[in-house]
Amino acid sequence: MSWDNKFSKDAQSIRASEIRELLKILADPAILSFAGGIPDPAMFPMAEMKKIRESLEDQPDLDRQSMQYSQTEGYAPLRDWVASRVSTSEITFDRENVLVTNGAQQSLTLLSTVFMDPGTPIAVANPTYLGALQVFGTRRPKYVTIDTDEHGLITASLETAFKGGVKILYTIPDFQNPGGMTIPEDRRLDIIKLAHEYDVIILEDTAYRALYHDTPPPPSLLELEGKYLGGSSWQENGLVIQLGTASKTLMPALRVGWTIAPSAILDKLVLLKQANDLHTSTINQIITYELLDGNFDAHVTALRTVYKERKEAMLDALHQYLPNSVSFTIPTGGMFIWLNLPQGMDAKLLLARALDEEKIAFVPGAAFFANGGGENTLRLSFSTCSPDDIRDGMQRLSSLIQREYLEKVA
Amino acid sequence: MSWDNKFSKDAQSIRASEIRELLKILADPAILSFAGGIPDPAMFPMAEMKKIRESLEDQPDLDRQSMQYSQTEGYAPLRDWVASRVSTSEITFDRENVLVTNGAQQSLTLLSTVFMDPGTPIAVANPTYLGALQVFGTRRPKYVTIDTDEHGLITASLETAFKGGVKILYTIPDFQNPGGMTIPEDRRLDIIKLAHEYDVIILEDTAYRALYHDTPPPPSLLELEGKYLGGSSWQENGLVIQLGTASKTLMPALRVGWTIAPSAILDKLVLLKQANDLHTSTINQIITYELLDGNFDAHVTALRTVYKERKEAMLDALHQYLPNSVSFTIPTGGMFIWLNLPQGMDAKLLLARALDEEKIAFVPGAAFFANGGGENTLRLSFSTCSPDDIRDGMQRLSSLIQREYLEKVA
Repeated sequence: MSWDNKFSKDAQSIRASEIRELLKILADPAILSFAGGIPDPAMFPMAEMKKIRESLEDQPDLDRQSMQYSQTEGYAPLRDWVASRVSTSEITFDRENVLVTNGAQQSLTLLSTVFMDPGTPIAVANPTYLGALQVFGTRRPKYVTIDTDEHGLITASLETAFKGGVKILYTIPDFQNPGGMTIPEDRRLDIIKLAHEYDVIILEDTAYRALYHDTPPPPSLLELEGKYLGGSSWQENGLVIQLGTASKTLMPALRVGWTIAPSAILDKLVLLKQANDLHTSTINQIITYELLDGNFDAHVTALRTVYKERKEAMLDALHQYLPNSVSFTIPTGGMFIWLNLPQGMDAKLLLARALDEEKIAFVPGAAFFANGGGENTLRLSFSTCSPDDIRDGMQRLSSLIQREYLEKVA
Repeated sequence: MSWDNKFSKDAQSIRASEIRELLKILADPAILSFAGGIPDPAMFPMAEMKKIRESLEDQPDLDRQSMQYSQTEGYAPLRDWVASRVSTSEITFDRENVLVTNGAQQSLTLLSTVFMDPGTPIAVANPTYLGALQVFGTRRPKYVTIDTDEHGLITASLETAFKGGVKILYTIPDFQNPGGMTIPEDRRLDIIKLAHEYDVIILEDTAYRALYHDTPPPPSLLELEGKYLGGSSWQENGLVIQLGTASKTLMPALRVGWTIAPSAILDKLVLLKQANDLHTSTINQIITYELLDGNFDAHVTALRTVYKERKEAMLDALHQYLPNSVSFTIPTGGMFIWLNLPQGMDAKLLLARALDEEKIAFVPGAAFFANGGGENTLRLSFSTCSPDDIRDGMQRLSSLIQREYLEKVA
């Protein structure tokens, strides 16, 4: 029996991601991987989590309650923590603006279901987060791609797109995945103004925001919009919906993220979340809250130091070994560096050689382009390897690129 | 700004559930609640879970891995456990047939996305699980309701529906939520035959299957279909997709459930799950597996004893105190008893009085009817109250029904 004609139209549009399939094969421990956008497990706050669990065990009623069904909106102290974390002197958020989700990925799922019909025009950066394209794809929207430079979204490209009719902009303003770019404050202000001029909803993904290396990134789009509108007007007229997650700063397997939105939108998201999976794991929300409310700042400070050291090792090695014909971004936070190979080189073919000849992995960039292109780009992650492995890996990768260039292009 | 015109067509169709809203208000501990379909937290295997965590802590690498991203399909030992649990001498399932989800609720979400377009005709029992109606509703299907009696789905009603054109049947054959009915084996065979005659996909929800009180329920639809088709043919021609969950037997906050399907369907579900939330919490899957693989049978045996005692207390009290004009189901497992009040009585109005005059809660039945009706029905849960509270509560409820009947109907 062929199942294909039984699938819904949405399901028929779902295709396997070549990249995800490829990454599965990479479980081989002999491979030095710069592919995964994952945090270093050595940095997980295991001891703190153990203390939280032990403290729960000392309160048997609460301990049992932590394993019971709980309300869809999420654990109230966690919602309060998120709301107060994004509140400023100019705009105050409260628990009614926060929904806890299974990582920011589920926030994207709920938001795309709530806002996208087949053919809905949505704007995304070229390149952008693959997981966003995957979930948006299940709603069959029309992608409008926005050009980027080393400062992220280019305002002129955005304005052209908005003029042409766009309902939603999805963006990662800080240390973007996959590009590593951070949008400066003046461009952020332009984005807010253009969104209100053309009535475009903005989904601001802040997954990497806390992981700056030296100084914090510019104010978030949510914060700037609060200032732009005046605090009290945001609940009524806000267009920015912010997504956050504990996956990059704490631990991915908590599967805890959140959406911050005006309450009229949040109410709809809550109904959908209830229908979709009732609620996020109670115990995981409690652990997340206690970790965030405990020494979170000390924890992310430690992460910043480690990731900064690795990034510098990677940048130094790329400067030293890469031929001049390859350009790359200089991120100020996050986990990623983005390479532009000479035109004519194909990163997918390069990966095959890298795996075969050098036992090195990275992610070819084409998958991050919603409407095609980017065959000569690739993403490197510096989050999980030691500085020594990074230097060694970059030297070998650079040498391979050199060889490939001489054989195929020059 | 009005957000209504910004919502997608699917989102516009999502409405708040009166019942869910009502149940929220019931957090008042002074109320004796027979409303929630939730397991008794006093029965949670807390000590066993503590041991599992301690054993993990003794294996630091595995412990950290348990908090990392993991593959979408789920934790392999858990998938193997589920597959072997449903395998019989006639049909063998393996890990490739099992996807781990965030409770059976997410299985329903993935399945409705994969199979339902707007207007897709789907058959559901009258009454059926509210949460299924909520998630199906987000896909805007056309409901075809199937009449039930004390043995669940009535074959003739099913055949009429299938003849009229139905793509999917959703059913809970064992100790149904909300009705408490169990479908006998001969009717199950009829369902399988009719499904193959009319090419109807069956979603078999086994949430309560392990919670029988004396003897196990008849073979599952999945098992019967395996026999009907011959084992090797199921992977190719199976129409039964089975949903399971650890929420009712272990603990809901694990948020662990699963879908068992032919691998062509499972592959599609995996892609959608990956897009929707990447994967289910790694640590929660490991804990679930260890609890299932440990003394699960002893644990459910204890649950059966406790729930049986409570059911009997409820049935005895209902027999003793209810007027003859009220009929009710006699469940052989699960958590629910279903009451049919005399025509003309409205369970929603009765609930208002029950809360006000008797501090008792239950769920009015109308919400469980996909296309309306059932105003004179209600659901009682016996899972969380002591036998004494149950006797007391049923006496007071019966007396209220008596009063209401005399005032409004007689």
